[in-house]
Amino acid sequence: MTEPGPPTIEFWFEFASTYSYPAAFAVEEAAHKRGIAVAWRAFLLGPVFAAQGWRDSPFNLFPAKGRYMWRDLERLCATQGLPLRRPSRFPRGSVLAARIACRFADAPWLPGFVRAVYAANFAEDRDIGDPAVIGDLLDRQGAGPDTLAAAQADDAKALLRAQTDQAMALGIFGAPSFLARGELFWGGDRLDAALNWVADPLLPPAA
Amino acid sequence: MTEPGPPTIEFWFEFASTYSYPAAFAVEEAAHKRGIAVAWRAFLLGPVFAAQGWRDSPFNLFPAKGRYMWRDLERLCATQGLPLRRPSRFPRGSVLAARIACRFADAPWLPGFVRAVYAANFAEDRDIGDPAVIGDLLDRQGAGPDTLAAAQADDAKALLRAQTDQAMALGIFGAPSFLARGELFWGGDRLDAALNWVADPLLPPAA
Repeated sequence: MTEPGPPTIEFWFEFASTYSYPAAFAVEEAAHKRGIAVAWRAFLLGPVFAAQGWRDSPFNLFPAKGRYMWRDLERLCATQGLPLRRPSRFPRGSVLAARIACRFADAPWLPGFVRAVYAANFAEDRDIGDPAVIGDLLDRQGAGPDTLAAAQADDAKALLRAQTDQAMALGIFGAPSFLARGELFWGGDRLDAALNWVADPLLPPAA
Repeated sequence: MTEPGPPTIEFWFEFASTYSYPAAFAVEEAAHKRGIAVAWRAFLLGPVFAAQGWRDSPFNLFPAKGRYMWRDLERLCATQGLPLRRPSRFPRGSVLAARIACRFADAPWLPGFVRAVYAANFAEDRDIGDPAVIGDLLDRQGAGPDTLAAAQADDAKALLRAQTDQAMALGIFGAPSFLARGELFWGGDRLDAALNWVADPLLPPAA
């Protein structure tokens, strides 16, 4: 028998998602403090939104929601001491970064890479859809020189498609989301509730 | 010169809104603990949603979001020790209750009435669109016998329309929302952040 691993929380994120930025910087520290491991689960919101009939971010489609989000993000980043520069283009292409995060989910450099991509997108206004930008971030995290090519191979593409399908099967409809003992929590402000759930589920599983 | 009143938080709510139910039961206690008064601001989500092209609750229009919400509400109510029975009809008609809450916003019985309407809707599965149900709730709160008729007069109807227009002018796009020193916070889980803002604004006002 293998040893059981530590209790784990799944962090479901999309690199173009604004609210995933402060969450990506908070999740590991908050989880580790409580002896909980983080499983990094990149996925794409595009197919999720398309299933709801949306061809763009709801923050672009619904202006009041968008205006609120940018201000709210400013407040959240200030609370966490994170820099924020509103990207000159939103949303940015996130497919390449997501393929890497999916294909190398367990690499030791992955959490640092995830945070670096978010910082590039939301603090430095760099184009995270550009392979040169992503290659630079991989180098800085000490990922191997073949990483970028591996992430563009067919098996990596299939992995991300499957993980996005899994997100939808889990009922995920936005990012960030957390999965704790099979329970879904949506929104960075539910991180504590999700971590609480790992240790102490409040209710029996939903029917 | 008149004395300045205590610092105030505006609680913007819609009686058909599921997440407004636990928020309505939490807002006053949390605010009063910090010396903050609550201004009760009923409005209608229907015109807000219609402006986004929606003719029904987004929880009905987007099934994944709806499934998540009902489970999440179950968890939130369990956390607050509030009973929950999923209403046999959702959303229920909230216009009459909202007219009352708008017309009698400063009545001493109003906070108790608001909570009683939410309990009727989400714990007792009563039809809050039915004047007999609302009349019963008013009686139990000790409102005067003319309250129901006054809320159906033209001036009360106009008041609620104006308050809903004001919600939209403030950029409100969902319920519950909180307004603290001109800052908008959306969602019951932002109550603490909104109360913090009353005492200690983190950023200068948005441009």
